[in-house]
Amino acid sequence: MHEFELIERIIARLRDTACGDGVVLGPGDDAAVLEIPNGHQLVVSTDALVAGRHYPGGACADAIGYRSLAVATSDLAAMGATPAFATVSLTAEDLTANWAEHYASGLAAAARDFGIAIVGGNIARGPESVTVTVHGHTPRGQAIARSGGGPGDALFVTGCLGGAGLALADENLGEWSLIALKEDSPVRRYWMPQPRLGLGIGLRDFATAAIDISDGLSSDLDHLCRASGVGCEVDLDALPLYPGATALDALASGDDYELAFAAPPDAQGVIETLARQHRVPITRIATLRRDPRPGVAWTRNGMPVEVRPGYRHF
Amino acid sequence: MHEFELIERIIARLRDTACGDGVVLGPGDDAAVLEIPNGHQLVVSTDALVAGRHYPGGACADAIGYRSLAVATSDLAAMGATPAFATVSLTAEDLTANWAEHYASGLAAAARDFGIAIVGGNIARGPESVTVTVHGHTPRGQAIARSGGGPGDALFVTGCLGGAGLALADENLGEWSLIALKEDSPVRRYWMPQPRLGLGIGLRDFATAAIDISDGLSSDLDHLCRASGVGCEVDLDALPLYPGATALDALASGDDYELAFAAPPDAQGVIETLARQHRVPITRIATLRRDPRPGVAWTRNGMPVEVRPGYRHF
Repeated sequence: MHEFELIERIIARLRDTACGDGVVLGPGDDAAVLEIPNGHQLVVSTDALVAGRHYPGGACADAIGYRSLAVATSDLAAMGATPAFATVSLTAEDLTANWAEHYASGLAAAARDFGIAIVGGNIARGPESVTVTVHGHTPRGQAIARSGGGPGDALFVTGCLGGAGLALADENLGEWSLIALKEDSPVRRYWMPQPRLGLGIGLRDFATAAIDISDGLSSDLDHLCRASGVGCEVDLDALPLYPGATALDALASGDDYELAFAAPPDAQGVIETLARQHRVPITRIATLRRDPRPGVAWTRNGMPVEVRPGYRHF
Repeated sequence: MHEFELIERIIARLRDTACGDGVVLGPGDDAAVLEIPNGHQLVVSTDALVAGRHYPGGACADAIGYRSLAVATSDLAAMGATPAFATVSLTAEDLTANWAEHYASGLAAAARDFGIAIVGGNIARGPESVTVTVHGHTPRGQAIARSGGGPGDALFVTGCLGGAGLALADENLGEWSLIALKEDSPVRRYWMPQPRLGLGIGLRDFATAAIDISDGLSSDLDHLCRASGVGCEVDLDALPLYPGATALDALASGDDYELAFAAPPDAQGVIETLARQHRVPITRIATLRRDPRPGVAWTRNGMPVEVRPGYRHF
């Protein structure tokens, strides 16, 4: 099928998710034209998924569509940003109309769930991969960086860890389409991660640092600590785990897209309120401390533990 | 080399191009935080280049870096947008520090030439490709869409066509690094296209429609005419050609990244002034007309001519 017909099919399938608040000009021109609310700053992140590496080759197109937008949007949650727009670049060797429409359906489902408009993109022939750039906004100066954590801040993680990672053991992981993913399960967590958007927005007012857990807690917590110039000691038994996941599994697996964040100790009450409001368990796992060599020390029963690093792209 | 070290090397090489006006938080966090001037709209476009398809496999990394930003930025020129920021997603099977630094150098050279800050990105292992998302802005309501052309408007193209296309015949095209591309030549036009940014901004005030010529004039002019719901007749002998290029070559080859635009006939004087100001030849090639079947009719000496379509991605 001709490129321009494919694009028309994709846009048709996106329907209401290709327009919305702030979209002055959506897909189909040289560029999209967008409005950011007055007094707000733009928050932008880009993420790529490569077939056979970041998801099983031959996976269902709608699942790829959903997951590709979800993992990119998780970075907006980590910044406390309100999600707004995304552009999507898709390469595939043989892009059929059927595949493209399924992909667009999954993308549209995620766009609706997260309140994002798909405003543009690109398709090209090449080895299958998807690159998504997401745009959100925060009131000026309120984005949460990784670098603001200080000694004495409490360190929290949302939800539970290791669930999505269990899905990697499922040899049929690539055969699930969205419609089959009805109940909470590792494969659902893998294909339909739910970025902590509402919670992230709620954290703007008092979190000092935040990061999304995409490479595994061991790597991502290290990033937060190093960027903030602090250390911390985390007991493996303090981690909230998905049923059936071990702490070591959970540390090394990304794909959960939960948040880790720091906040002053007196914020405990507000955090409990946020947790109830957004129906997200929030677990305090450590306290940040001065450390000449910033990073995380993992322990169990007070004894040091060696942990595998998280996912490494190279 | 470890992913995070690679990212640090890339950021180090970007230097001043990773910050600048409007960059509140640049590369290295979950997302970038950016400011758009008050009263302005955001203009966003994304473009992907796949090794072995959109450029020769094994090409010099700095040339890939320059070209990847240039071709994406050309879409901002077509909208009349002031360029501001870009994110870059790079996948490669074996990304060495040397390759990444050369790539970043080429990217930085283009970023300086076009006034763009590289504010974030992603690296991943996979078949080599580069996806760039560019961000610019225009005063509210002043972006130039493809769809505003009307009957009676004159149709123009900038520069000359077919130059970059000639480079595809050079069997050493993949061996050029930026430093070797000193004089105007087809290979320089191919690796270092110069988006018509200043001119595009100048066109905001009076162009009714614009598009960048990236797939070849025959396809791109057709897009503009269909989006505007008009037709036009273009004589092949009216096209401005790069020395050595034929009209049919020029029509079917993209890679020139010139602009085609429509403007009311009384704008001729302003356009001549803009052409002098920006040292860009601007050639009037047709007049838009009412047409029940919008599109372009190609002629030579008044006789219809069949032209090859431009580059098709599928």
